[in-house]
Amino acid sequence: MNRKTAARRKKVGLPAGSLAYFGQSPARPTRITLFEYTPETISEKKVEDVAALVSSEAKKGVTWLNIDGFQNVEAITEIGQFYHLHPLVMEDILTMDQRPRVEDFDDYLFITLRMFYLSASKEIVDEQLSLILGENFLLSFQEMPGDIFDPVRERLRSGKGRLRNQGPDYLTYSLIDAVVDNYFVILEELGEQIEETEKRLLASPSPEKLSSIFALKRKLIFMRRSLWPLREAINNLLRSESKLVTSTTLLYLRDVHDHTIQAIETLETLRDILSEMVDIYLSSQSNRLNEIMKVLTIIATIFMPLTFIAGIYGMNFKYMPELNSVWGYPAVLLFMALIAAVMLFYFRKQKWL
Amino acid sequence: MNRKTAARRKKVGLPAGSLAYFGQSPARPTRITLFEYTPETISEKKVEDVAALVSSEAKKGVTWLNIDGFQNVEAITEIGQFYHLHPLVMEDILTMDQRPRVEDFDDYLFITLRMFYLSASKEIVDEQLSLILGENFLLSFQEMPGDIFDPVRERLRSGKGRLRNQGPDYLTYSLIDAVVDNYFVILEELGEQIEETEKRLLASPSPEKLSSIFALKRKLIFMRRSLWPLREAINNLLRSESKLVTSTTLLYLRDVHDHTIQAIETLETLRDILSEMVDIYLSSQSNRLNEIMKVLTIIATIFMPLTFIAGIYGMNFKYMPELNSVWGYPAVLLFMALIAAVMLFYFRKQKWL
Amino acid sequence: MNRKTAARRKKVGLPAGSLAYFGQSPARPTRITLFEYTPETISEKKVEDVAALVSSEAKKGVTWLNIDGFQNVEAITEIGQFYHLHPLVMEDILTMDQRPRVEDFDDYLFITLRMFYLSASKEIVDEQLSLILGENFLLSFQEMPGDIFDPVRERLRSGKGRLRNQGPDYLTYSLIDAVVDNYFVILEELGEQIEETEKRLLASPSPEKLSSIFALKRKLIFMRRSLWPLREAINNLLRSESKLVTSTTLLYLRDVHDHTIQAIETLETLRDILSEMVDIYLSSQSNRLNEIMKVLTIIATIFMPLTFIAGIYGMNFKYMPELNSVWGYPAVLLFMALIAAVMLFYFRKQKWL
Amino acid sequence: MNRKTAARRKKVGLPAGSLAYFGQSPARPTRITLFEYTPETISEKKVEDVAALVSSEAKKGVTWLNIDGFQNVEAITEIGQFYHLHPLVMEDILTMDQRPRVEDFDDYLFITLRMFYLSASKEIVDEQLSLILGENFLLSFQEMPGDIFDPVRERLRSGKGRLRNQGPDYLTYSLIDAVVDNYFVILEELGEQIEETEKRLLASPSPEKLSSIFALKRKLIFMRRSLWPLREAINNLLRSESKLVTSTTLLYLRDVHDHTIQAIETLETLRDILSEMVDIYLSSQSNRLNEIMKVLTIIATIFMPLTFIAGIYGMNFKYMPELNSVWGYPAVLLFMALIAAVMLFYFRKQKWL
Amino acid sequence: MNRKTAARRKKVGLPAGSLAYFGQSPARPTRITLFEYTPETISEKKVEDVAALVSSEAKKGVTWLNIDGFQNVEAITEIGQFYHLHPLVMEDILTMDQRPRVEDFDDYLFITLRMFYLSASKEIVDEQLSLILGENFLLSFQEMPGDIFDPVRERLRSGKGRLRNQGPDYLTYSLIDAVVDNYFVILEELGEQIEETEKRLLASPSPEKLSSIFALKRKLIFMRRSLWPLREAINNLLRSESKLVTSTTLLYLRDVHDHTIQAIETLETLRDILSEMVDIYLSSQSNRLNEIMKVLTIIATIFMPLTFIAGIYGMNFKYMPELNSVWGYPAVLLFMALIAAVMLFYFRKQKWL
Repeated sequence: MNRKTAARRKKVGLPAGSLAYFGQSPARPTRITLFEYTPETISEKKVEDVAALVSSEAKKGVTWLNIDGFQNVEAITEIGQFYHLHPLVMEDILTMDQRPRVEDFDDYLFITLRMFYLSASKEIVDEQLSLILGENFLLSFQEMPGDIFDPVRERLRSGKGRLRNQGPDYLTYSLIDAVVDNYFVILEELGEQIEETEKRLLASPSPEKLSSIFALKRKLIFMRRSLWPLREAINNLLRSESKLVTSTTLLYLRDVHDHTIQAIETLETLRDILSEMVDIYLSSQSNRLNEIMKVLTIIATIFMPLTFIAGIYGMNFKYMPELNSVWGYPAVLLFMALIAAVMLFYFRKQKWL
Repeated sequence: MNRKTAARRKKVGLPAGSLAYFGQSPARPTRITLFEYTPETISEKKVEDVAALVSSEAKKGVTWLNIDGFQNVEAITEIGQFYHLHPLVMEDILTMDQRPRVEDFDDYLFITLRMFYLSASKEIVDEQLSLILGENFLLSFQEMPGDIFDPVRERLRSGKGRLRNQGPDYLTYSLIDAVVDNYFVILEELGEQIEETEKRLLASPSPEKLSSIFALKRKLIFMRRSLWPLREAINNLLRSESKLVTSTTLLYLRDVHDHTIQAIETLETLRDILSEMVDIYLSSQSNRLNEIMKVLTIIATIFMPLTFIAGIYGMNFKYMPELNSVWGYPAVLLFMALIAAVMLFYFRKQKWL
Repeated sequence: MNRKTAARRKKVGLPAGSLAYFGQSPARPTRITLFEYTPETISEKKVEDVAALVSSEAKKGVTWLNIDGFQNVEAITEIGQFYHLHPLVMEDILTMDQRPRVEDFDDYLFITLRMFYLSASKEIVDEQLSLILGENFLLSFQEMPGDIFDPVRERLRSGKGRLRNQGPDYLTYSLIDAVVDNYFVILEELGEQIEETEKRLLASPSPEKLSSIFALKRKLIFMRRSLWPLREAINNLLRSESKLVTSTTLLYLRDVHDHTIQAIETLETLRDILSEMVDIYLSSQSNRLNEIMKVLTIIATIFMPLTFIAGIYGMNFKYMPELNSVWGYPAVLLFMALIAAVMLFYFRKQKWL
Repeated sequence: MNRKTAARRKKVGLPAGSLAYFGQSPARPTRITLFEYTPETISEKKVEDVAALVSSEAKKGVTWLNIDGFQNVEAITEIGQFYHLHPLVMEDILTMDQRPRVEDFDDYLFITLRMFYLSASKEIVDEQLSLILGENFLLSFQEMPGDIFDPVRERLRSGKGRLRNQGPDYLTYSLIDAVVDNYFVILEELGEQIEETEKRLLASPSPEKLSSIFALKRKLIFMRRSLWPLREAINNLLRSESKLVTSTTLLYLRDVHDHTIQAIETLETLRDILSEMVDIYLSSQSNRLNEIMKVLTIIATIFMPLTFIAGIYGMNFKYMPELNSVWGYPAVLLFMALIAAVMLFYFRKQKWL
Repeated sequence: MNRKTAARRKKVGLPAGSLAYFGQSPARPTRITLFEYTPETISEKKVEDVAALVSSEAKKGVTWLNIDGFQNVEAITEIGQFYHLHPLVMEDILTMDQRPRVEDFDDYLFITLRMFYLSASKEIVDEQLSLILGENFLLSFQEMPGDIFDPVRERLRSGKGRLRNQGPDYLTYSLIDAVVDNYFVILEELGEQIEETEKRLLASPSPEKLSSIFALKRKLIFMRRSLWPLREAINNLLRSESKLVTSTTLLYLRDVHDHTIQAIETLETLRDILSEMVDIYLSSQSNRLNEIMKVLTIIATIFMPLTFIAGIYGMNFKYMPELNSVWGYPAVLLFMALIAAVMLFYFRKQKWL
């Protein structure tokens, strides 16, 4: 959250429409990859010179331009101008805190969403993905190169499945599907962390454990803030009746929509489990207190009367007949043992022992 | 929940539309049963050879093809192709984590829902049921053979009731009705477990009891995740105006819809009762603490002053006139008894005893 | 709740449409009362022979047939067939767990709701009431005879008010109005029980009191489950534009609708009060703990130092100059009194006394 | 709440439409005040004889008939009949538990709402106000005379502002506006009581304080039950397109609608503050327990070891070499002081002191 | 909240439409600044004489009249009359407690919202901003001069960006955008205060910390009360189809709408974090209690038995054989050490040490 407001803060006072990169960390070098495919052919190349790309327009088939790294704002601007993108769209692509949504500009659809993936160090990382879907092209913008689209690229190259036979809308669907499928990977990872935390919590509860429960909860809240608008965005797409999305692809998007709902429900279940863990934690803490107090009470209740009796026979009165009796000492010891036994019996009856 | 994400995870990166079984446990052998009936006649047989089935089409009456076990993916694919099912539908039938829903493909309705039943060991088991309702046929897919449809089969065979006189939509209704009626069996079972837990909780509260409350709660959350979309799905069916469902059957489906709402309300009541049990548990725990502390305080408050008095007369001062008095010892004992009596009276007044 | 699922369970596997009574307790003997009235005339009789009733149709005026007790399923079935009721409607009338609702069958309206009344032993009892409103007749089905309709019958007999001048829809309104008015009687009874419980709770909190709070809460939840769908049902009736309900009666039904909302709000307020009582209870319990601990701490803090001082002068060192002083003993006693006074002053300053 | 159900209870079984006063306290004597005004003229008089009033109809200008006190049900009925009011409307005017709402009877609008004002003893009092807005008249019914309309009367008399130049709809608006403005007075009063309670709560928390928090909460719930339907009612009025309300007045009613929303939001904020106060109270109570236990623990931890040491040298063994040493006594005292110092140092390090 | 009701209270009884300033603090001197601009030219001047301003109407280009300080109600009234503003609008501009909203008066749009900014002393200050958007003019009213519009003024003067080339609707958008962007500055500030509080809370929990958590929570509730209606207002503007807002500006307003949603979501996340902090605080407090009680129990459990043993050998019985043994004293000391060791071992096993 702080990251986001930080990105936004820098912009305060700037006129809308002036292009610059706004993110938390500095932008990575820009790398542009071009796929051009028809059902029969496919070409894939790294674009070094945007000017050249712009002049040699692809006449037929589908063009997929994947841009990662936002360092070269000029090149990105040039691409935007070539495809007649609205200045606000260009600004949104370069600002790393967009709320997932779909906007219809008649000539193209602007789709922005958040990808979640596990980094090499198994940490949950999220990133903004912006898609521009035109009549025969798809532009995709992201900061990190990322490999969650590798299976899609592989299918493109191999020509397996229906990907090569469909338009850029089906490619768009494939990318969104890959993003949504990855949500489940993250949710499973979080589910395992939650189970792990639960086990450790039950082993020995401590406030640090509670902090880690809330840390998990915040991660879920963070994901939720991406999932809800994503579902809403896909729903808008389903009802938009844009001519850029064929009815065939719509059927597949309906499937993705269902997966998003399922991801949300899984997430809500995880949140419920975390809430229960807080309850169990608090209850186990109060239970420990009960246990501690029982020990204290048992000890005090046994030894206080005994110490009192010992105190009586420690008094220095001249005339205390018991003191002179030969059986006084063993009798008192016996009496004390009796009291202790009665106490222990009482505690056992109370189920304190 | 983990089961579901696990099933989904395996799929990450796979192109949509490639057919394979995705479930938690390995698929059981495929068994196909064929019912063909008219108001007057009925034939029932086990299908061994799908190719033969496909070639000899039933000309009149209603065909019900029940497939359980997903091991033979090829045979299932063949059936799907024979009935012109969409690849996505085939994929959803074979993936064991579908959200209950109804989809209208004009020529057929695709209905997927979850059945809950008690296993032989009285455990709650759930399973996916997929139905394909066509003009004169019904396909039903499930992993386990299951016997909750036995009464429906019996009615089919005997020809009693209106089942044989109606189309496949009424058969579909009968199956859904059997599934929903079984929800009540499960809810009653859970209701009894909850009552049982409540009794044991009140007998002796412990954190383990709390865990079992939350375990019951999770089962309810799990059922709820199937019931809400089921209600929504039946509602969609009621409003779909599909030509495959006659107005007579709609009336019956309205009844099922009502039962679903009733099941949801019963479930919510059970959840409320579980929440109250947590409150009662926490309160009883704090009450026990009060009880324990009362015992400690009563003991300490009686014996501390007494021990102090004994301590005084245990002092070794040379000039302590009381020590030499013959009545010193009994007087002190009497005084101590008096103090103890006053304390006990005070505690009784405070309602601590 | 258990009652309901029990009724439902018995039905699992039965074909829809087979008529039998499903309730928790065995059905009472069937008693059929017939009212026939015009603005000028009224006849009231007990019907012994359904066949005779069915053959001699009332030509003019309004017919009210009140059936209580469901033992004679055959007679009830005969009545249902005479009035051309749908089999599902007959089944719902005989199954004692219907969710309140209104269903429009063009020729008649089927209305089912729950009545609440106080039994002779002042317990809250609820029961299902089913109404069939036709063009010139009203059928009412209930298990227990019940006297909450007595005022309506009285008005019918006396001809006072507008009841005799209106159609069966106004009679339907009068019955529903009597049911809803009785909800307020029950709510007031519950309100008084809640106040009573609150008083006893404040007098001496105990976990048993908490249980009785939750018992009250469950009663409210149970009523709520009848009130919400009732409101919805009346609302549907208001918007149904059925030709069976005149615009005059609609105006009166709008009034009943308003009363239902008011009953719901009263109920929600009672629930809020119960929730607060739980909070007050828990807080009073923790307050008691504070009080107990204060007593313990005061006693320990005063007597521990004193006992320690007594202990010092109980030591057997040979060279302890104070012991030989004549003023030693009184000086120590004075010192002890001083310490106790300082402690008490400190506790008073801390507002512990 | 009890008041309301009590009023309703009395009615159970009575036919709808029979006129009688239903309130908690007996009705006050009826007083009828008549205002007749045009932009230029105004007449104001007390009406003693309703029959005379009814015969001499006001031909032009606006008539405002204010009735307070419901003792004279006959006079009120006569007025109702003269203006052709529906029997249900008359009944609702005389029953003191109406839910705020607006009903459109084509010829007139029936508006019922609740006024809140501070009584002479600064207590919050509420009362029902019923308004009948006709083409050129306004009837207002209330039980207590009340002075919150005095400013409106004053403006009528003086002819200042636009009141005299507008129709009865603007007068209706002025009355509703006065009622809503008075809500803010009450909310401010409650806000001050809440602040007062908060201060006293922080000074010394006790369960009685908690009860007064909940008492404030119930007052807010009570107001809320009037405010929500009032907002809804004004909203219905705004959208009703009744010909009785001019577009000019609608603009002003939009303003009142906004004030109602603002009052609701203020009320919700007050409720949130009260909920927080409960949390602060519970936390401060548990904090006090911690403080008490710290004192006990410090005392016990210091004096228990010291008393033990004194106990050792109080033993009567024959061969205890320390006892015979001249430095034994001072050495033991020093050792005890050392132990106490170490303990105190430990507690300071633990931030317990 | 009190501020608001205070402002409102003063108004009770006043006729709607009478102009006067209603705020918490006295009004500041009125200062009027006039901007007149076309794509090519811009003039900026301070207006001293409203009469002169009113007579010399700007014929072409856009006029922006910025009024701050409401002391000179006459001048403001004159401006309002010149632009034919409705009396209610003028009243709302001068009353400092308006709920954010947009109202369409055909000839002009009335927009009122709340600005939040950090004062020089880093405190969060909020203020009402009223905008009147006409065909070729924009009026803006605010109490404090404020500098959050300085960047907009700068862009106007420099002619950079598209501001000078667009109509007053784009200027309106720029002002609202500046206001919304400033919400993020405030949210970031609050986010930092929350983090700060969290750190200090974990370092040493105390009820004062809890109070500061609730103080932060109230600030968020206060902002929320401005943000929700603002979002609603912008949404209304987007759907209003007013001819005063061009489709180009609508696109930009859609962007602002999205930012408002984002601000709301950030705010809700902050509230969730504060709620968790309360939970962590309460848990850490109960944990401290556990720690304290452990110390007490350990001390008591070790020293009570030891003191008891010392008490036994302090008894004055004549015949106690151990007392005369040479090894009695060291044997008892050893036995005591053994008991202490066993106790410590037990506590370590219980993980209390």
